Amino acid sequence: MIRTTFIGSGNLAWHLAPALDNVGYPVREVFSQNPKHAAALVGKLYEAHVNISLDFSASESKIFIIAVSDDAIQEVAQKIVLPDDAIVIHTSGSQPLSILDDAGSQNMGVFYPLQTFSKAKKVDFKCTPIFIESESSDIEKALMKMAKAISGKVKRINSEERKALHIAAVFASNFSNHMLAIAKEIAKQNDLDFEVFKPLIAETLNKSLEIGPEKSQTGPAVRGDFEILERHMEFLKVNPELAEIYKIISQHIINSSTQ
Amino acid sequence: MIRTTFIGSGNLAWHLAPALDNVGYPVREVFSQNPKHAAALVGKLYEAHVNISLDFSASESKIFIIAVSDDAIQEVAQKIVLPDDAIVIHTSGSQPLSILDDAGSQNMGVFYPLQTFSKAKKVDFKCTPIFIESESSDIEKALMKMAKAISGKVKRINSEERKALHIAAVFASNFSNHMLAIAKEIAKQNDLDFEVFKPLIAETLNKSLEIGPEKSQTGPAVRGDFEILERHMEFLKVNPELAEIYKIISQHIINSSTQ
Repeated sequence: MIRTTFIGSGNLAWHLAPALDNVGYPVREVFSQNPKHAAALVGKLYEAHVNISLDFSASESKIFIIAVSDDAIQEVAQKIVLPDDAIVIHTSGSQPLSILDDAGSQNMGVFYPLQTFSKAKKVDFKCTPIFIESESSDIEKALMKMAKAISGKVKRINSEERKALHIAAVFASNFSNHMLAIAKEIAKQNDLDFEVFKPLIAETLNKSLEIGPEKSQTGPAVRGDFEILERHMEFLKVNPELAEIYKIISQHIINSSTQ
Repeated sequence: MIRTTFIGSGNLAWHLAPALDNVGYPVREVFSQNPKHAAALVGKLYEAHVNISLDFSASESKIFIIAVSDDAIQEVAQKIVLPDDAIVIHTSGSQPLSILDDAGSQNMGVFYPLQTFSKAKKVDFKCTPIFIESESSDIEKALMKMAKAISGKVKRINSEERKALHIAAVFASNFSNHMLAIAKEIAKQNDLDFEVFKPLIAETLNKSLEIGPEKSQTGPAVRGDFEILERHMEFLKVNPELAEIYKIISQHIINSSTQ
């Protein structure tokens, strides 16, 4: 049994803390800028309590998991007070391992689950790839073990690979989702029900995952149908930002398909 | 029983012709620019044969379905010779009904299935919305009936609404798929396996369909994390097109989330 502490109670901590709590990594303390949020997360755990400061010098925990937004990690690392021999890790896709230098522990690592987390939606960690980074092979082993306790897909990675992974993930997740958000907006502006697009979206993504996105592209851009492209941009010109997005992505589809 | 004829043997015809063939709309003839393609489709049908010209004056079919690429519809309409009282329809999201004027029939309509079609992947028409347009209420009824024979989601629509529908569909399907293609490309360039992104993509899209894309956005842009955005664009600058796509979509996510 290895005790853990969470700094942060956002979307990731909301799912990761209970997952670890259940598999021999009991969470003892949760700290959050907003103690109410920390208390809500504590309510999902067996024996955790809210810590109202970042002073953990008396803590019995071994692993301290900084699961805060990317731009807050450094400040937490500067302020946190850890017990002797503690391991401190962050969970970010884009921050280097070295951002933890200020935490004053030799035992640093990264534990990056490649997944999108929202409080409202349960996540299956078994299928969630987790990427581990550490300069110490002992710490790496300890983190690999913790990751394998919840996930069937655990890999080592370095900071540079992790950055590429995160950028690709932004396209695969955030940007693909935003394309759906734009579709919904266009539908709304034209009194069309977004529901009608759901079978198309599901089929598109199933096909893309099955045969590969580069093989499953359809539509006017990949067909090189410039008349339709012109007409669509004309339709969108009331919203120049959308017209520009339409143009630049269509252009890139054309370029990619003729390479 | 209402006999039908297909002009075109591409991705849509490949799935639509057998679907209609099975539900009381037997396909009698298939025409394609490439007779071999027509023959391949005929091989999936009960009693069809290949027509090597667009002269259908002796045909017993009632409904002629022009399922060719958008920019070829007008030429087909100009060349086709129809029997008396035939109904001629196209299946395009973006072409107006009037593109069929040259076909010399009073009985015109549009039959637009909102779905992405590839020959390699079977499509479930039951869940595929089909949009019907005609200026004649008799034709509209006949097409609604044909659509309802294969789909549980049939709606009337006019040419202008259909154009908006198609543009939204380009974002929802073609562009979301292209975001996955870009992710795969970035992964490949950095020796990362695209497989690791699949749980993320599946979760993103399930969440988006479940709670709405506007509510499920995550990532650096919606968080307003400009430091990460800068770092990602810096990473992408070896590929200025991708850096520009990254920038313009991130900007639009920021603008959308602060409206």
